[in-house]
Amino acid sequence: MELYPVSRLAAVAEATARSGLDALLLTPGPDLRYVTGYDATQLERLTCLVVPASGEPFLVVPRLELPAAEHSPASRLGIEFVAWDETDDPYALVAARLGEVERVGVADRMWAMQALRLRDAMPRARQELAGRVLRELRMRKSPAEVAALREAGAAIDAVHALVPNFLKPGRTEREVARDIAAAIVEAGHVAADFVIVGSGPNGASPHHEVSDRVIQPGEPVVVDIGGPMPSGYCSDSTRTYVVGDPPEDFVAYYEVLQAAQEAACDAVRPGVPCEEIDAAARRVIEDAGYGEYFIHRTGHGIGLEVHEEPYIVAGNTEPLEVGMAFSVEPGIYLPGRHGARIEDIVVCTETGGERVNHRPRDLIVV
Amino acid sequence: MELYPVSRLAAVAEATARSGLDALLLTPGPDLRYVTGYDATQLERLTCLVVPASGEPFLVVPRLELPAAEHSPASRLGIEFVAWDETDDPYALVAARLGEVERVGVADRMWAMQALRLRDAMPRARQELAGRVLRELRMRKSPAEVAALREAGAAIDAVHALVPNFLKPGRTEREVARDIAAAIVEAGHVAADFVIVGSGPNGASPHHEVSDRVIQPGEPVVVDIGGPMPSGYCSDSTRTYVVGDPPEDFVAYYEVLQAAQEAACDAVRPGVPCEEIDAAARRVIEDAGYGEYFIHRTGHGIGLEVHEEPYIVAGNTEPLEVGMAFSVEPGIYLPGRHGARIEDIVVCTETGGERVNHRPRDLIVV
Repeated sequence: MELYPVSRLAAVAEATARSGLDALLLTPGPDLRYVTGYDATQLERLTCLVVPASGEPFLVVPRLELPAAEHSPASRLGIEFVAWDETDDPYALVAARLGEVERVGVADRMWAMQALRLRDAMPRARQELAGRVLRELRMRKSPAEVAALREAGAAIDAVHALVPNFLKPGRTEREVARDIAAAIVEAGHVAADFVIVGSGPNGASPHHEVSDRVIQPGEPVVVDIGGPMPSGYCSDSTRTYVVGDPPEDFVAYYEVLQAAQEAACDAVRPGVPCEEIDAAARRVIEDAGYGEYFIHRTGHGIGLEVHEEPYIVAGNTEPLEVGMAFSVEPGIYLPGRHGARIEDIVVCTETGGERVNHRPRDLIVV
Repeated sequence: MELYPVSRLAAVAEATARSGLDALLLTPGPDLRYVTGYDATQLERLTCLVVPASGEPFLVVPRLELPAAEHSPASRLGIEFVAWDETDDPYALVAARLGEVERVGVADRMWAMQALRLRDAMPRARQELAGRVLRELRMRKSPAEVAALREAGAAIDAVHALVPNFLKPGRTEREVARDIAAAIVEAGHVAADFVIVGSGPNGASPHHEVSDRVIQPGEPVVVDIGGPMPSGYCSDSTRTYVVGDPPEDFVAYYEVLQAAQEAACDAVRPGVPCEEIDAAARRVIEDAGYGEYFIHRTGHGIGLEVHEEPYIVAGNTEPLEVGMAFSVEPGIYLPGRHGARIEDIVVCTETGGERVNHRPRDLIVV
């Protein structure tokens, strides 16, 4: 049960053929890593895996990166590595090796710098997103991928267990965030990808990161943290803490939020449309009269990217399937006052939703 | 002397008009930050600054990111922020607000995911790279930008000063790299963007990062490190250390390398083509018989990106101008044995090259 099975490349080629695309062009990023296991750095020098719908895949790689590629899991695939030198045109090289094609899928996160140069090198090829092909595969996590998400969940849970030690009135958000970032790495992540510490009114801005604001006694603090693990798979979990005695109005809506998050998690099972999970959380919050304060979607898929498909949002009628993994993170935000959010990563199983985060969801008073 | 002057937006609109493009479309990344100072996170939700060649610029922003945008330097620009909700189509919004256009420049690092959706929302607009317009501005650093690069240089120099404390025989590259990464952040960087510790034969692979290899007595170790500062501007500096008595053949080529790096730095002055700086280093190395072991270009521009224009490479005839900033980093790599590289960031001034890195370049024996 490998995380990056060698057989995946052939499955991707078949899916490419089925989709009607002639080839995928994958530059470093989550798509390339998913297909090959190769965690290449995104650079201005072109590295590009070419997966034709029929024919042999090959990896175009700067000569400088050749040793890294040869030491990467991509070396197990038995494909040709085509090295280019500093004064070569790698875009022309891709075009020449691939030959005449009509429709190519480019990695969703390919830089425009490279996508437009590939377009110009292959003027007859219509570019589409490789995600059209890869989403079907990447959305349905294998047991090994689910295990990697569980491992990431345990790592970020260990950090949340430490957060009460860091949160003290009189400290700034930035000071707290620095301790949390160090703990994220200490817990086994490759990096602290994001550390949101939103105290008092800053907690009412869902994507506030950190500031030099001093945390005051009695203030709610939203802590939303995560990062990639060595496996490539990401953690992402939010808990809301209160430093001392919480404001009464806060306690009232926190209970609503907790019920909403629970309802959304309970709604997870195969066949349920994504938007229904969003609706399950929203209904509880709206019924309690806080609907206008829940200003974002309920969640996003997670895997090699912190945000990927499926999105748990109104209008997304895609039915859940076994192996889909996503955040369930409703929030209530009172502008200028404070806010709260509770977030777990949930995997859809045969029998319902399995959370990979297990820290208490009751209001945490520190 | 501001790092992100408010006047820059008008200068960019004028340059857009001169270039024949109808508008620039800038998503989060170095281009957007350069124009506005706004350090927005690159997300699947579209944030896009639209700079028409004539007419009012505006920022399309997810409602969730609106508070962050309003607290960012972009709020000083006096432009309209157009917020979109979770169920809106932001690509259609950009197209409708911009109106009929023929040629648009997209941020060089825009994800294909967004570039292709913008293409589909504006099917009559031909996409080109915004870099065509912005490179002329971004390549010529202002005095404030040069000051930011000097500050970054001093920060990474402080880390190199500590490296001898971390490098001990018996430690692994990864252990050393962990200490260096912490020191990079401690020295004031936002993050440790890259930490290359290449010991013995690993030093012969220029883009080797780190491994669990144990450093042996007498081995050369290439240490290439850097990261972004809070200003947004990046550091990047390489020194080669020897842990104990160096191999004789290594000492011989290290002296050649040092002379080559010096020659390249000395060659910097306005009007000299970029490729001539590369040739100046290469000539010294070739004349000493090591030409085949110098397997990469001599350098890359640096600023808001670690790698940006101008590239110091054969074939680049662009003449240097005052304010251009780039690495000068020749290397000599003996496959399977060891390697060496010396790297400083150099700014082109009226009178020659000013290095922003000042750590000793003699072989450092620890």
